[in-house]
Amino acid sequence: MRPSGRKLDEMRPVTIETGIQRHAEGSCLIRLGKTEVLCSASLEERAPPFLKNTGQGWVTAEYGMLPRATTTRNRREAAAGKQTGRTTEIQRLIGRSLRACVDRQALGERQITIDCDVINADGGTRCAAITGGWVALRLAANRMLKAGLLTTDPIMGHVAAVSCGFFAGQAVLDLDYAEDSEAGADGNFVMRDDNRLVEVQLSAEGAVFSREQLSNLLDLAQGGIDHLIAAQRAAL
Amino acid sequence: MRPSGRKLDEMRPVTIETGIQRHAEGSCLIRLGKTEVLCSASLEERAPPFLKNTGQGWVTAEYGMLPRATTTRNRREAAAGKQTGRTTEIQRLIGRSLRACVDRQALGERQITIDCDVINADGGTRCAAITGGWVALRLAANRMLKAGLLTTDPIMGHVAAVSCGFFAGQAVLDLDYAEDSEAGADGNFVMRDDNRLVEVQLSAEGAVFSREQLSNLLDLAQGGIDHLIAAQRAAL
Amino acid sequence: MRPSGRKLDEMRPVTIETGIQRHAEGSCLIRLGKTEVLCSASLEERAPPFLKNTGQGWVTAEYGMLPRATTTRNRREAAAGKQTGRTTEIQRLIGRSLRACVDRQALGERQITIDCDVINADGGTRCAAITGGWVALRLAANRMLKAGLLTTDPIMGHVAAVSCGFFAGQAVLDLDYAEDSEAGADGNFVMRDDNRLVEVQLSAEGAVFSREQLSNLLDLAQGGIDHLIAAQRAAL
Amino acid sequence: MRPSGRKLDEMRPVTIETGIQRHAEGSCLIRLGKTEVLCSASLEERAPPFLKNTGQGWVTAEYGMLPRATTTRNRREAAAGKQTGRTTEIQRLIGRSLRACVDRQALGERQITIDCDVINADGGTRCAAITGGWVALRLAANRMLKAGLLTTDPIMGHVAAVSCGFFAGQAVLDLDYAEDSEAGADGNFVMRDDNRLVEVQLSAEGAVFSREQLSNLLDLAQGGIDHLIAAQRAAL
Amino acid sequence: MRPSGRKLDEMRPVTIETGIQRHAEGSCLIRLGKTEVLCSASLEERAPPFLKNTGQGWVTAEYGMLPRATTTRNRREAAAGKQTGRTTEIQRLIGRSLRACVDRQALGERQITIDCDVINADGGTRCAAITGGWVALRLAANRMLKAGLLTTDPIMGHVAAVSCGFFAGQAVLDLDYAEDSEAGADGNFVMRDDNRLVEVQLSAEGAVFSREQLSNLLDLAQGGIDHLIAAQRAAL
Amino acid sequence: MRPSGRKLDEMRPVTIETGIQRHAEGSCLIRLGKTEVLCSASLEERAPPFLKNTGQGWVTAEYGMLPRATTTRNRREAAAGKQTGRTTEIQRLIGRSLRACVDRQALGERQITIDCDVINADGGTRCAAITGGWVALRLAANRMLKAGLLTTDPIMGHVAAVSCGFFAGQAVLDLDYAEDSEAGADGNFVMRDDNRLVEVQLSAEGAVFSREQLSNLLDLAQGGIDHLIAAQRAAL
Repeated sequence: MRPSGRKLDEMRPVTIETGIQRHAEGSCLIRLGKTEVLCSASLEERAPPFLKNTGQGWVTAEYGMLPRATTTRNRREAAAGKQTGRTTEIQRLIGRSLRACVDRQALGERQITIDCDVINADGGTRCAAITGGWVALRLAANRMLKAGLLTTDPIMGHVAAVSCGFFAGQAVLDLDYAEDSEAGADGNFVMRDDNRLVEVQLSAEGAVFSREQLSNLLDLAQGGIDHLIAAQRAAL
Repeated sequence: MRPSGRKLDEMRPVTIETGIQRHAEGSCLIRLGKTEVLCSASLEERAPPFLKNTGQGWVTAEYGMLPRATTTRNRREAAAGKQTGRTTEIQRLIGRSLRACVDRQALGERQITIDCDVINADGGTRCAAITGGWVALRLAANRMLKAGLLTTDPIMGHVAAVSCGFFAGQAVLDLDYAEDSEAGADGNFVMRDDNRLVEVQLSAEGAVFSREQLSNLLDLAQGGIDHLIAAQRAAL
Repeated sequence: MRPSGRKLDEMRPVTIETGIQRHAEGSCLIRLGKTEVLCSASLEERAPPFLKNTGQGWVTAEYGMLPRATTTRNRREAAAGKQTGRTTEIQRLIGRSLRACVDRQALGERQITIDCDVINADGGTRCAAITGGWVALRLAANRMLKAGLLTTDPIMGHVAAVSCGFFAGQAVLDLDYAEDSEAGADGNFVMRDDNRLVEVQLSAEGAVFSREQLSNLLDLAQGGIDHLIAAQRAAL
Repeated sequence: MRPSGRKLDEMRPVTIETGIQRHAEGSCLIRLGKTEVLCSASLEERAPPFLKNTGQGWVTAEYGMLPRATTTRNRREAAAGKQTGRTTEIQRLIGRSLRACVDRQALGERQITIDCDVINADGGTRCAAITGGWVALRLAANRMLKAGLLTTDPIMGHVAAVSCGFFAGQAVLDLDYAEDSEAGADGNFVMRDDNRLVEVQLSAEGAVFSREQLSNLLDLAQGGIDHLIAAQRAAL
Repeated sequence: MRPSGRKLDEMRPVTIETGIQRHAEGSCLIRLGKTEVLCSASLEERAPPFLKNTGQGWVTAEYGMLPRATTTRNRREAAAGKQTGRTTEIQRLIGRSLRACVDRQALGERQITIDCDVINADGGTRCAAITGGWVALRLAANRMLKAGLLTTDPIMGHVAAVSCGFFAGQAVLDLDYAEDSEAGADGNFVMRDDNRLVEVQLSAEGAVFSREQLSNLLDLAQGGIDHLIAAQRAAL
Repeated sequence: MRPSGRKLDEMRPVTIETGIQRHAEGSCLIRLGKTEVLCSASLEERAPPFLKNTGQGWVTAEYGMLPRATTTRNRREAAAGKQTGRTTEIQRLIGRSLRACVDRQALGERQITIDCDVINADGGTRCAAITGGWVALRLAANRMLKAGLLTTDPIMGHVAAVSCGFFAGQAVLDLDYAEDSEAGADGNFVMRDDNRLVEVQLSAEGAVFSREQLSNLLDLAQGGIDHLIAAQRAAL
C-alpha cells in the first residue's frame, strides 16, 4: 500500500558511515533509504559572545542542500545571497535538538558547529541530519576527551529524530518523498534514548488531526527512534 | 506561584479591537495581557505563480516586531537587511496555521497576506498573531462576500493558538515573558473550533519531557483555545 | 475647496497619546487627522564610535511604515532586504531635526534612538514623526533627569514640523494624501518654539515656485507649528 | 576672511568640458574649484513600468563618489553592497531637480539616466552634479532632436544649483569643504533660468536660522545661479 | 623530496565514481588523492536570455565548498550572504573550460549547469572540478542522445585540468595542499584530448618566472592531462 | 587588416597623466587608445588582520567601471548591491600582479589600496589598470620615502600588463573592443621590467590553441610590455 511496499511501521534501511570529512573533529554520512546527508562537527575554542564568562559552551547547526539533491535543480543559496526560510527553520531545529543532550557546563566555553549537507533528498532530510549530526557530535566529544581537552563527557545520551505522518489515511513511519508530498499531516519527533521527548512538530497543511492521531504517531515514532539509536550505536 | 499571580490554567485578559488600519481589507489589534499585536489582511487579485491556472488561492503571512516592543531595543530588520531565522520561522507558522481553515478553491486565484506587527512583546506574540490574524482574515472574507467577489465562504471555522509550558516544574497556560524565559519545555498549540489540532510545536531546550507531560499541555491548551475563540467571536 | 473641507490655514486635529510602548524610555502615538505614527525613544549608554572620548552624545532616528499603512499594501522593507531611498531620506531628516534642540554635551556619551513607525498614512507622516519624536525624546530626557543620570536638561526647547504646499493653485497648510498627491510644490518646515527655522525643504516636481510663494508657505507654516507645539505641551 | 580668500558672494571658478564619455548620448566634466564631477546622460528607449502607456518619459539620476575623491579613502559602495543614505538622498535630489525642466510628454516613453560620479570632492558636489547633469541632459536632447527621435524640444530652460550657508557668522556663497565642515546652517538652492525655484533645502545641524537669514541666502543663491547658467551656456 | 614522497611528474591516484546524485542527468565523485569533489550536470530546457532565438545553448558552472572541507571550518557562503571572489573566479573558469568542448549549436536552446561541490579539499579542487565536471556533462549528453533529445553529439572530445607549479625550486605536477601553500608560482592548465590548450593560468604571488619555466610546466601538464583523460575514459 | 588599421604588433598610443586625484598618495589617468582608467593609491597605516604582528604589509586593488564607460549603459554595481564575478576576478588579478613587485617586509605593517575606475572602455581595461596602478603605487611609495615613513624602497622594478590574442586567425597585440569581441583566444600577460612573467592568463572560449600559438603571443607581449614600461618611465 505504501509506494515503497514498506509496512506502516517499517523504516527505510539506515546506514551511518563515519570519517567522511577527514579534517572535521567528527563526521559521518547517514543514509536513510535514498536520502543521504553528510554531517560534520567542527570545534572552535571560543563560545559565542552571549556566553562570555559563563563557563558554558554552545552547539549550533547549519543546514544546506546541494543544488541537485532534488528532482529538479534548486537554486544554490550562496548564489541567491540568502538562506530560505525553510533552511533557517531546519537548522534552528537541529541545533535545539542536539543541545538537549549536551551538558554545556561540561563542554566549557567552546562552540561545536554541526554542518549538515544533503547530498540526495528523498524525504526526511532534517531527521537524518539530527540523527547523523548526533554521531558527528559524539565523535568530536570522543576526540576531545581522548585529547584531554575535557574531563567530563558533555554528551548525555543519544538524540535521534524520525518523521511520521498520515499517508492515504494511515499513520506511517519514516515518510519518503513520494509519501511526504501527499501526506495530510506530517510531523517530526526528536527523542533521547531515555524515551524522553526533545521536540514534537506536527503540522496539518492538508488535514487537521485529533489527539488520538497524534498519539498514534508518537507510538510509531518510538519504534523508529529505537531503530535509529541502534544504527548510531553500530556506527561508533 | 506564577509571577503574575495567575492560576496554572488561567489566561491573561484578551481583547481584540477591529478596524485599526483603515486601508486594510481586515485588521485588528489583539491584546493578550501586555502583549499587543497589530494584524491586517491585504487582498491581492493574483495568486502566487505556483498556483497559476489551478483555480486556487493562497494565504501567507509576514511577521515583524517594532524595535522597541522589547525590554531593550532590538535591531530593525529593515536596517539590518535581513529577517532573522526566528522571524521567518514564525511567519511560516502563521501562514500554515491560517491556511488550515481556508478553502483555497473557494477563495479562487487570489492571495491574502496577513501582516502581524508586534507593538509590545510580553510572551506569546506568535500565538497572538495567529489568533488576531484569523480575525483580520475573517473580516477580509466578510468584505469580499459582501462585495460579491466571493459566493462561497472560504473560511472554514476558527483557528486560534496558545502557548503552554513548564514553569517551576508545573504545566502552565499562556506563558508571559517572565515565565517563558525560565520555562523548561515550551510549546505552541494551534487548534480549530472543531477541536482538531492544526499544529503542535513543543521544544525542550532546557528540559526534555514525557508523553504524559505533552498530554497535560494539550489539556491546558484546549481550555485556552476555547477562551480565545470566544474572544474572536466577541470581536466580530 | 480642499477635499476635506478645511480652510487654507487649518490643520487637521492633532492628538498625542503617551506611554504606548511600555518598555521604551519615552513613547507616544501621534494622530494628525488619519495619519498615525508610533514614536519611541530608546536610550543606549554608549555613543557611536565617532564620538568616542568627546563627551558628547547623539540622537538618531529610524523610520518605517507598516505594510498596510497605505491604500495598497507596500512591500515590507525587512523582507525586501533594504530600506528604500525615501525611508533613508526621511529618517535622516528626523534625526537632523531633533538634534537641533539637543545639547549634546549635556547628554553625555549616550545615544538616543527615535523609532517612528507609521500605523496609518494619510499624508504628512514625516512631519508627524518629527513632532511625535520630540515628545518621545522629551519623555526620555525627563526620565533620565528623574533617575539622576543627567544633571542638566539636554533638551533646548520644542521642535515640530509641518507640511505646506500648493493645492489647486492655493497655498495650503498640512496637506493630506488627497492634496499631497495633486500638489504642485510641496514642502516640509521644521521649527523650534523660539520661531527659528531648523530645516526647510521645498520641492517642485510639478510646478516651480517664486520667492513670494515660498514666503507664503513660511507664513502658513508658522501657524501650524504653533498649533503642534501646543499639542506637544498638552500631551506632557 | 574666507579660507580661500574669496569674497562673500564670490563663486569658485567654474568650467564645463563636454564629450568626456564618448559612448554617452551626452556627457561633461564640471569643475567647481577643486570639485570635479563627471556627468553623463544615457538614453533608454523604454520608460519605467509605472509610466507604461501614458505617453510620458522619465529622467532619473544616480550618484557615486570614487573612493579617493576625498581626503581619506571612503569605502567603495559596490564593495560594501549598498549605497549610503547620503547617496540615495543626493541622487533623488538630482533627479527631481532635472525633471523640473523636462516636458515628459514631449520626451515620450523613454528614460534618460543621468550618472554623476565625483572624481574630486571639495564641497558642493551635489550642486555641481545638478549643474553638470543639466548639460549632459541638454546634449542628449540635442542629439535626439538632430536624429529626428524627437520633434519638440523636451527641455524647458536651464536648471542649476548652488550651495549657500553661514560661515563664521556670515552668509557666504558656494561653500568649499573647509567652509562646509564648519558651517552653521547650510543649504542647496536649485533654480531655473526664469528665476523660479525648483528646490530649497536648508538644514541647521549646528545653528538654527531666521527667515531673514533664509532670505539672505536666497539673495546670494540668485547671483550664483546666474553665474552657473552662464557657464552652462558657454559649454554648449 | 615532495612531502607526499611522489616523483616530480607523478600525479596522485585518481578515481571517478559515477551516479552519485541520482536525480541529476549526470554526476560523479572525483577523488584526486585526498581531494574529493562531487560534480553534477543539470539540464534545463531553456537557454539564458542572451541566447534567445539563436538556436544555441549554454553550459555554465557553480562551485562551492562544504564548510568543513578544509583544515579549519570556512564560513558557509549561503550564511554569509555572498560568494567570495575566489568562488566566482573558479566557477567562471569551470564554465569557460567546459564550453571549449561543446558544440552549442548542436546542444540547441538548452542550458546545462555543472555543480561542483568540494567534500574534502587537499589542493587542486578547481582542476578536479573541471575534470569531474566533464564526466557529468558527458553523462548528461549521453542520456539526452539516448532519449532522442539530441541527434548530434554536442560534446567534442575530452577536457581535463591539472595544476603544476614550483615547489622548493622544482617544477612539480599536481600540487597537494602542503605544496600549494608553499609554492612560488602555481598554475592551472586546461587541455583537450587533441592536445590543444583551453586555458592557461599561471600566477606568481611568491616568485616571478621565466618563459622556460612556463615551458617546463606545460611539459608536466601534458602528462597529467593524459592521465586524467584515461581516468575519465575508465569511468564511463 | 585590423579594424583600427594597426600592424599586428602595434600598440595603441599610451599616455599616463599623474596627479589627477589630489587627495590620493598617488594617482594617474592612463589612456590606452580610447580606453581610459583612473588609478589611485591610498595608504592606510594598518595592515589587514591576517598580517598582524608579521611586520609585513599588503597591497590590494579594487576595480570599477562607470556606468557609461561602455556602448550601452551597464548597471551601477553599488545600486545592484553586488560586484559582478568579472569585477572581483579583475580586482584580484590587479592586486596579485602589483604585489609581485612589492617587498612587503620593506613596506611594513601598512596597506596600500589601488583603486582603478574605468572612465571609458575600449578593450584592455584590466591591463591598463595594472599598468596605471603601478604608477599610482610608485608615486605613493615615493611620497612615503620622501616623508621618511620608509627607509627602503618597497617597490622592486616595474610591472605592466598587455593583452594579446587571435583576431581573424592572426596573433595581434593590444586588442581593442572591436577585436576583443571577435577574438578566438584572448590572453593577458603581466610582466616585470626584468622580463620575468608575473601572470599569464589565456582563455579559449571560441578557439583552442597550441603551445606554438601561446609562444607567439608571448613574443608579442614582450614588445608591448617594453612599450608600456617606457610610458611609465615617461610619466614619472
